Amino acid sequence: MSIIENKLTSLQLTLPTVSTPLANYVPCVIAEPLLFVSGQLPYENGKVKIVGQLGATVSEEQGIEAARHCMLNILAQAKAALGSLDKIKRCVKITGFVSATADFTAHPKIINGASDLIVAVLGDAGKHARAAVGVSSLPLGAAVEVEAIFEVGG
Amino acid sequence: MSIIENKLTSLQLTLPTVSTPLANYVPCVIAEPLLFVSGQLPYENGKVKIVGQLGATVSEEQGIEAARHCMLNILAQAKAALGSLDKIKRCVKITGFVSATADFTAHPKIINGASDLIVAVLGDAGKHARAAVGVSSLPLGAAVEVEAIFEVGG
Amino acid sequence: MSIIENKLTSLQLTLPTVSTPLANYVPCVIAEPLLFVSGQLPYENGKVKIVGQLGATVSEEQGIEAARHCMLNILAQAKAALGSLDKIKRCVKITGFVSATADFTAHPKIINGASDLIVAVLGDAGKHARAAVGVSSLPLGAAVEVEAIFEVGG
Repeated sequence: MSIIENKLTSLQLTLPTVSTPLANYVPCVIAEPLLFVSGQLPYENGKVKIVGQLGATVSEEQGIEAARHCMLNILAQAKAALGSLDKIKRCVKITGFVSATADFTAHPKIINGASDLIVAVLGDAGKHARAAVGVSSLPLGAAVEVEAIFEVGG
Repeated sequence: MSIIENKLTSLQLTLPTVSTPLANYVPCVIAEPLLFVSGQLPYENGKVKIVGQLGATVSEEQGIEAARHCMLNILAQAKAALGSLDKIKRCVKITGFVSATADFTAHPKIINGASDLIVAVLGDAGKHARAAVGVSSLPLGAAVEVEAIFEVGG
Repeated sequence: MSIIENKLTSLQLTLPTVSTPLANYVPCVIAEPLLFVSGQLPYENGKVKIVGQLGATVSEEQGIEAARHCMLNILAQAKAALGSLDKIKRCVKITGFVSATADFTAHPKIINGASDLIVAVLGDAGKHARAAVGVSSLPLGAAVEVEAIFEVGG
């Protein structure tokens, strides 16, 4: 078993089954040394787990959990594309899109659900650049969407 | 004539005249091997063709057509920057911004207008990573904006 | 003193003190030859200087000033990461997120606040690809957020 998958196990994290893209695109593209992972929703068992808007129908706790779940899906997609997560050298950048009302202000706290997970899994190599923004709506009504760029090799 | 331009012709697609950036930036920057194309609107003859919001004043059919038109403009800008579209090795990533209401959920279907076009033109090399999100508004009231990253060379 | 910092001085620009990320991420990541700078808010002295929405509570002039200030923070973060701004070869791409109402249309004019500044500082090397979009809300209520990718080396 790989180093990073051992780490996932020790954190009691299980990667979800990868979801099929909702349309005519692919989950991952490698343009060496970068791996671009398509925007992931908080999918679980083929359904979006947390739907609605932050500042309205979704609590901060649910938003954080949604972001965390997006990152689990990012890792699952990266594993499917790379064969082994040990090919990840570092997480370069994530963009966190939060479905949010005009008066919502805690986007960083929500996207921490994704950031904290990747830093827990990859350690210093998980420390990434980031943008977190509020959007008017997301595919299938998801509360959060996260995309990622990794540096890969080896 | 280039291979890709022959393909455009066989698909009965005509690249629009490239539009001038609305501000102090450029349509394309090459940081080899990547070509970054600025966010394109559904411009035609110097005007934004489809304005308004998905979920309100713009139908799904119009939204798909807007996304398709953004991708035509992306190809036109890439051609102007590269000289020949045959320098494109693959489409790496697109981000599709859909001007959408809070209850809109069909962003993937809309951005397929762009994804389907680039896959039709480039084949397997057109299969890209992607994020599709809903935004509160776009420049000049456009219904859709799409940006792209290509791998180029040769 | 560096060439670019001399230029900043001649433009009477002072880089702000770099702000600490609001969460578990880092301001800059280098994946050579690219430098990814996290989304920056119009921070000044530890506070977001311009809050609210374009099209509602924030004027175009304030929005432009907010975007300009985001770019100053981007330069401050890049300097902190690189040691010297002279390691910047060019500005490759910026994404400008404007907190905006559904009927706002002047996003390009707002993000020019950032684009004009980087072109003033770097000259031709400052000419970048760009996307400007309207978002429903931003961290801490900021009116504008800008992220950037630079090509670096040497």
